[in-house]
Amino acid sequence: MKTLNIGIIGYKFMGKAHSNAWKKVPLFFDVPAHPVLKVACGRNESQLKTFAHKWGWEQTETDWKKVINRSDIDIIDIALPQHMHHEIAMAAAAAGKHIFCEKPMAMSVKQAEEMLQVCTDNNVTHYLNHNYRRVPAIALAKQMISEGALGKIFHWRAAYQQDWIVDPAFPLSWQLQKETAQAGPQWDLNSHCVDLAHFLVGPISTVTCLTTNFIRERPLASEDSVGNLKATAKGTATGPVTVEDAALMMVQFDNGAIGSFEATRFATGRKNKLSFEISGSKGSIAFDLERMNELQYYNAEDPEHARGFRTILATESVHPYMDHWWPPGHIIGYEHSFIHAAADFLKAVTGQQAIAPDFNDGLKIMRVLEAGLLSAQNGQKIIVH
Amino acid sequence: MKTLNIGIIGYKFMGKAHSNAWKKVPLFFDVPAHPVLKVACGRNESQLKTFAHKWGWEQTETDWKKVINRSDIDIIDIALPQHMHHEIAMAAAAAGKHIFCEKPMAMSVKQAEEMLQVCTDNNVTHYLNHNYRRVPAIALAKQMISEGALGKIFHWRAAYQQDWIVDPAFPLSWQLQKETAQAGPQWDLNSHCVDLAHFLVGPISTVTCLTTNFIRERPLASEDSVGNLKATAKGTATGPVTVEDAALMMVQFDNGAIGSFEATRFATGRKNKLSFEISGSKGSIAFDLERMNELQYYNAEDPEHARGFRTILATESVHPYMDHWWPPGHIIGYEHSFIHAAADFLKAVTGQQAIAPDFNDGLKIMRVLEAGLLSAQNGQKIIVH
Amino acid sequence: MKTLNIGIIGYKFMGKAHSNAWKKVPLFFDVPAHPVLKVACGRNESQLKTFAHKWGWEQTETDWKKVINRSDIDIIDIALPQHMHHEIAMAAAAAGKHIFCEKPMAMSVKQAEEMLQVCTDNNVTHYLNHNYRRVPAIALAKQMISEGALGKIFHWRAAYQQDWIVDPAFPLSWQLQKETAQAGPQWDLNSHCVDLAHFLVGPISTVTCLTTNFIRERPLASEDSVGNLKATAKGTATGPVTVEDAALMMVQFDNGAIGSFEATRFATGRKNKLSFEISGSKGSIAFDLERMNELQYYNAEDPEHARGFRTILATESVHPYMDHWWPPGHIIGYEHSFIHAAADFLKAVTGQQAIAPDFNDGLKIMRVLEAGLLSAQNGQKIIVH
Amino acid sequence: MKTLNIGIIGYKFMGKAHSNAWKKVPLFFDVPAHPVLKVACGRNESQLKTFAHKWGWEQTETDWKKVINRSDIDIIDIALPQHMHHEIAMAAAAAGKHIFCEKPMAMSVKQAEEMLQVCTDNNVTHYLNHNYRRVPAIALAKQMISEGALGKIFHWRAAYQQDWIVDPAFPLSWQLQKETAQAGPQWDLNSHCVDLAHFLVGPISTVTCLTTNFIRERPLASEDSVGNLKATAKGTATGPVTVEDAALMMVQFDNGAIGSFEATRFATGRKNKLSFEISGSKGSIAFDLERMNELQYYNAEDPEHARGFRTILATESVHPYMDHWWPPGHIIGYEHSFIHAAADFLKAVTGQQAIAPDFNDGLKIMRVLEAGLLSAQNGQKIIVH
Repeated sequence: MKTLNIGIIGYKFMGKAHSNAWKKVPLFFDVPAHPVLKVACGRNESQLKTFAHKWGWEQTETDWKKVINRSDIDIIDIALPQHMHHEIAMAAAAAGKHIFCEKPMAMSVKQAEEMLQVCTDNNVTHYLNHNYRRVPAIALAKQMISEGALGKIFHWRAAYQQDWIVDPAFPLSWQLQKETAQAGPQWDLNSHCVDLAHFLVGPISTVTCLTTNFIRERPLASEDSVGNLKATAKGTATGPVTVEDAALMMVQFDNGAIGSFEATRFATGRKNKLSFEISGSKGSIAFDLERMNELQYYNAEDPEHARGFRTILATESVHPYMDHWWPPGHIIGYEHSFIHAAADFLKAVTGQQAIAPDFNDGLKIMRVLEAGLLSAQNGQKIIVH
Repeated sequence: MKTLNIGIIGYKFMGKAHSNAWKKVPLFFDVPAHPVLKVACGRNESQLKTFAHKWGWEQTETDWKKVINRSDIDIIDIALPQHMHHEIAMAAAAAGKHIFCEKPMAMSVKQAEEMLQVCTDNNVTHYLNHNYRRVPAIALAKQMISEGALGKIFHWRAAYQQDWIVDPAFPLSWQLQKETAQAGPQWDLNSHCVDLAHFLVGPISTVTCLTTNFIRERPLASEDSVGNLKATAKGTATGPVTVEDAALMMVQFDNGAIGSFEATRFATGRKNKLSFEISGSKGSIAFDLERMNELQYYNAEDPEHARGFRTILATESVHPYMDHWWPPGHIIGYEHSFIHAAADFLKAVTGQQAIAPDFNDGLKIMRVLEAGLLSAQNGQKIIVH
Repeated sequence: MKTLNIGIIGYKFMGKAHSNAWKKVPLFFDVPAHPVLKVACGRNESQLKTFAHKWGWEQTETDWKKVINRSDIDIIDIALPQHMHHEIAMAAAAAGKHIFCEKPMAMSVKQAEEMLQVCTDNNVTHYLNHNYRRVPAIALAKQMISEGALGKIFHWRAAYQQDWIVDPAFPLSWQLQKETAQAGPQWDLNSHCVDLAHFLVGPISTVTCLTTNFIRERPLASEDSVGNLKATAKGTATGPVTVEDAALMMVQFDNGAIGSFEATRFATGRKNKLSFEISGSKGSIAFDLERMNELQYYNAEDPEHARGFRTILATESVHPYMDHWWPPGHIIGYEHSFIHAAADFLKAVTGQQAIAPDFNDGLKIMRVLEAGLLSAQNGQKIIVH
Repeated sequence: MKTLNIGIIGYKFMGKAHSNAWKKVPLFFDVPAHPVLKVACGRNESQLKTFAHKWGWEQTETDWKKVINRSDIDIIDIALPQHMHHEIAMAAAAAGKHIFCEKPMAMSVKQAEEMLQVCTDNNVTHYLNHNYRRVPAIALAKQMISEGALGKIFHWRAAYQQDWIVDPAFPLSWQLQKETAQAGPQWDLNSHCVDLAHFLVGPISTVTCLTTNFIRERPLASEDSVGNLKATAKGTATGPVTVEDAALMMVQFDNGAIGSFEATRFATGRKNKLSFEISGSKGSIAFDLERMNELQYYNAEDPEHARGFRTILATESVHPYMDHWWPPGHIIGYEHSFIHAAADFLKAVTGQQAIAPDFNDGLKIMRVLEAGLLSAQNGQKIIVH
């Protein structure tokens, strides 16, 4: 079988999730080409070697430019924070590599435009890993909407709620600093939700946004020997939080629907709760990532006495991707969405089918998110261009 | 026992709900004065008499001014649409009557200011019937927040979702016209949610709002012989919808929290779903009116391995108002909140305790709602004065 | 309008629930005859007078035989513990009174047979108040099953769970003694569930039962001045619990379905949780009394990708009884089922329609429950005759 | 690192689930020895080779005895139907192999006794794969019970509901025939639930059981070319179903608790719903496999006004096994329980810690299940020896 050599850059949370996907995809899907975990790249050589050994990456490299310049590498997997995406993607595309890129796409619309341009110019496959599109229940939602199950769409409401920085002792990690993250949940969380809104409802035309900070100064962060974050000892130095702690948005869609978004790291008790609801003239759906195997669906055309939101347990072989897994009722988890993405990406790279979201979609997301930041500053509704 | 004579103005949905409350309150509460259903007032004499007979109103009257001018009436119960509130409340207060007034309070901040002033000048008790404050689970939420269970509050998110006008054949009822309703769900539904936000979180300082219409023209409405709305036959005249179909708001609170509101009559499958969630530094709560006997509560100070949102079934005698009803686990319904309001109102009128929300609270709600309408027009964040 | 004079015997929990029903039914239903709260009867004259005054019973009487012998009384409402049902019902029927009788029907099959016989002989209306049949969501379940929505029924599973005697300090109330209660949850709770099983699935043919006691000795009980139970002071006398604390049953139905029942007062955290599920060849339903406005329904004939249990919020005007109440989404409570029973009973007494469950149904329930007690003793499957 | 060579016998559903576990366990756990997928064994050579190639089994073999006799094999993984377990386990243990055996353990108590004996005699590690013990939420339940969170246990209620044979056209697979399955859901499903009851509550002392069949004759089954079941064409031969379709049990535990079990393949709409609830004097827990990342917990010692069942999302690093996976709120799926089992089994084989359930536990389960079959025949309560 044909093989495709992968070079991954980054070895932390996303490095692990991506490695798992590359290893597992051939076991559950009939892939058109076998992904080879060829080289893992990162700055801390000791941590990198541990990672590579565990996951079976054949080689390691601390200079990402060298990885990109290797002729035997087909795919560059960018599993790093967003402030690194632009530089690496530009170089990778210029070198003719296909790109599997973590979200959020970039630090700005400008960066995103350039990334898209260079990929187009070099005719490489580019995939932006908004993995939740490939949660079976969400893919099912898309299918049902496409079939007209909801009729004309009126409302989108999304909330992505986490609570990992409620504690003031949580350190000033890279996610809390503008130079590495550009924004807080507006970038990290709302990029997922805007992607889903585009996917399920359509283009967004205007944005009004409100952001705030609850904790403005935090202890400086450092890493322990295995790369985990730790707070500096009490009484020592602190630094300013330079991104927002929470972001709200109200939007208008091209098709006349309106929508709301909440993204926060201060929703005590919510761990990774991405929830959304879509109301349409013929029906509605609702989803909650903490119960990601389920899709709520209301059919307004059911008999009048027997209408209600039903819980579809999207684990049947008729549901998207689920014929590759276990019998009905045997649920899958978070990591499976990455495997689905890997399967579809391999088909895209080998020319079997297109893949979305790509950098086109990512650029559109960036436009909405950046308009949000501007609106949060000036208190006005912004038209998305 | 002392009695208090009531004159009710209005005999439709709210006339029924209020009458039930007045009749039932002495059966379940030790009231300080017995409410006497003295006179019912409405314009359609035939429908009025049927209503009065059924509910045991002793007399009927078609001219509300005559009711107000009767010296034997102690309480005026305003159970009419909002466009009638100002005129009646002004006259009732001037005549020294205590006022039990349906929500939303008025058509404008200006009206609300005048209503409050005349009540203050005449030293009458005024109560604005945002009845949901007296749902036991919500009263429990207030108690817990007051005790500090949530710590510092970060987030308020509310949605009041209905779907009763999704059908384009639904006629142009008074609720859909600016001259009788002033606004759509921004008035009808968001007045409840803003009241609860003020009650549970605190004063709102800024508002940004987005409204829209999904259906702009509807068949003219008429009533059948018993007062129910019916659509004019197909092909006949239509008229423009002059209030919004849905309203979104983002707000800042004085205490630093931020909040979102959604109010809509186009949330297919949601019948009377007022839901809210409050996130704080020590815990969170969530509520859903369609399961109004339940309060969700997350305690961040539970042992780390045993944290989660718990469903408090607020039907125990330790829960607000519930010692007056049935054994634990025997739920109550929508109408009970009116009975609780009647019980507390009778105590207020007899000087035993103050009651809220009153027209002070109502005026503050009006300021937020009116700011919302302005923001929806100009696309800007509005400071609430 | 025609009137019907009621004599109620009993003034505690059920006296209150029944009084409320008689008072409220004409307000929400078009009754064929107006129920008159004529005379209330009980042994403790002081408590009785307080009760009668509050609820508007015109007269009081401490000797129930005198009530039955009054020629102006049309209906005897038996709102007492089960050990009093037989004697009163026998006398009332013999006197030609219509009977509205609380559940469980009697202390034994023999008593139930006699009660049915005397009612039949005297041609009086007899109603056994298994009120849950008239919860709208349950009445909807019946309607759907009758229409064939579930196809052939395979399974019934019911649990009625309470936790009010988990505390060993809870006193030895009449419910815990064989001479007043005959049995524990097997009588009190399973009589409800067996009634619902008969109603929704059909006749039961065999019973196997298991009972147990967790606490065998409890402090003696006494009443305070207003009739509430209190434990005797610590260290004082105790007595043996002579009924079971929990009862499990497995049954076969005539139609080939099988079923299970759990009834317990030791299900910590469950307050009044009567839940059941019915599985059939075409669909399934599930119900939970703590969310009594909802019915879960699974339609196996929905499109394969869109199947799931849907939550029907049974508050629409198309749902049984709900056209008498509030708009969609405005829930009702426990007490409403009594009002529905009162409405239907008045129609039965005036000959407009039959009513069930009556003493025929009650006798069949008794046969199952009594067979259960026998099975619990001998450990064998019992055929229900 | 030390390695352990595995020979797997069986390549269908469980072959896939076990292979995935062996491959994945070193990626997420620090294993004391590296599992080597050495040889896969099955009767259909073509299907076997496809399986082995996909999952990376180094070699294939169609004669299981040859696998057992290989000196380089350390572990025999029995991934076959229960009628094959006894013969293979006896031989494997005699050959000194460690055994990882699918459930249910065997066809009878007698077989189980012999299997245990030979393992004991040969001092091999034996593990019976009741994998649900290692679902984090269930492991958390065990931890909490051990810590006393529930106090004295009163009730166990379990239901394992599936619906895969409701359709009469479903063919007569091996699971529906006594010679290959011994029993239906009593074996397949109740073995899981009895294992969990033993794990969480304690030994069972008596059993009363009721079984039934809804469909007694089914079309004969055959396999298509890739090993999937297909029905013989319509009108062709059928055969009798020789195991029960559903089984109910009521049990007494040594510690005074009582319990109920339902196991069925006819619960329309329930796909793989293993649910249980445990009520104790200090609290209760509830679990549902279709939401396997959640544990419901009621703490009777919470403040009286704030008690309720809380939903613990068992995805935090403090929860059993979850420090090996993703951040909080990122759920895991069915297959993860096998990986946890593999991790613990490798520790057991290398002498680091004991593992349960083993054949001791399996024998105890068999005694309960077999007593159930006897009770179902004679209608009597059976004491479990």
